[in-house]
Amino acid sequence: MDLLKERIRRDGTIKKGNVLKVDSFLNHQMDIGLMNEIGKEFKRRFEGKNITKILTIEASGIGIACIVAQYFNVPVVFAKKTQSINIDGEVYSTKIESFTHKKVYDVIVSKRFLSEEDHVLIIDDFLANGCALLGLLDILNSAGATVEGIGIVIEKGFQDGGERIRQMGIQLESLAIVESMDDEKGTIVFRGE
Amino acid sequence: MDLLKERIRRDGTIKKGNVLKVDSFLNHQMDIGLMNEIGKEFKRRFEGKNITKILTIEASGIGIACIVAQYFNVPVVFAKKTQSINIDGEVYSTKIESFTHKKVYDVIVSKRFLSEEDHVLIIDDFLANGCALLGLLDILNSAGATVEGIGIVIEKGFQDGGERIRQMGIQLESLAIVESMDDEKGTIVFRGE
Repeated sequence: MDLLKERIRRDGTIKKGNVLKVDSFLNHQMDIGLMNEIGKEFKRRFEGKNITKILTIEASGIGIACIVAQYFNVPVVFAKKTQSINIDGEVYSTKIESFTHKKVYDVIVSKRFLSEEDHVLIIDDFLANGCALLGLLDILNSAGATVEGIGIVIEKGFQDGGERIRQMGIQLESLAIVESMDDEKGTIVFRGE
Repeated sequence: MDLLKERIRRDGTIKKGNVLKVDSFLNHQMDIGLMNEIGKEFKRRFEGKNITKILTIEASGIGIACIVAQYFNVPVVFAKKTQSINIDGEVYSTKIESFTHKKVYDVIVSKRFLSEEDHVLIIDDFLANGCALLGLLDILNSAGATVEGIGIVIEKGFQDGGERIRQMGIQLESLAIVESMDDEKGTIVFRGE
């Protein structure tokens, strides 16, 4: 998606340790016009799929998922990160390790909002090692729901999350795949360039 | 907003301790059609205001704020809850006490995304004691930004947050104000009824 790649080049910042900051338009301040273009692109890539629900994980996935959901006319469910076990009602739960925050989170979704009748599109902002996605897939597996695909805004192609997911036979669509970044030169190479 | 009140009556659940659960359509599973009607209603109530940015706080405010922002054609900034002081770059920060989670959070917004040139509409899902809103107002005060108003989906009118905010002279628009709830009878009375 050229519009997105141009925006990453223009407004993204590369930091040491392969950190790509896109907080001016994607995950702290959000450009809603760009989110709508992202929604249209996901609709195009998952055209013909029978999708009944979009699943994401808090926090930065929620805004994107809500805008994208308008193109599929389905509700959004967001998985909640929690550090307490004292949860009201019955939930599907899994553990997700965050490398950014060096923590293990319990992640939950109420059983009322996912069932074996659901055909789910997962939406998230970033894919790196894939831990968050594997957690969401674990929850969908517990629910008996069908995974119709995964839509990611930015994939770090030099980490192995994308490969792990594709090897599972799941349709994974990443709108920009970063092949390499150079924080000293400030350059970025996308897959396919 | 009658559509919202009807939905709360139909799908909301009242629990002991004045807890109102609306997680089937507002803050765990999200009905995007309803969010759009909420967006139109806020646009109507803040018509004529010069708004340059919408501010909310993670996590459940983000989705609503993004849908609402489409009616104002402005970016969304969401304040981040953090328990680490190790934050990259310069930020505005404040402390917010959560009664639900019995914790004090540091809440931050990057200084790059709020300035004295901004005219800000705050959007959030719930207003009870007002701690989260007072924190966001503190951040806007630090930024020197102008507060154009606050849009809340559900206000608990029997807690004092709404009164505190209105006494400050800020235009606060709550689409449903709960006057009282009875968890045994399952009944709810909205302000004005």
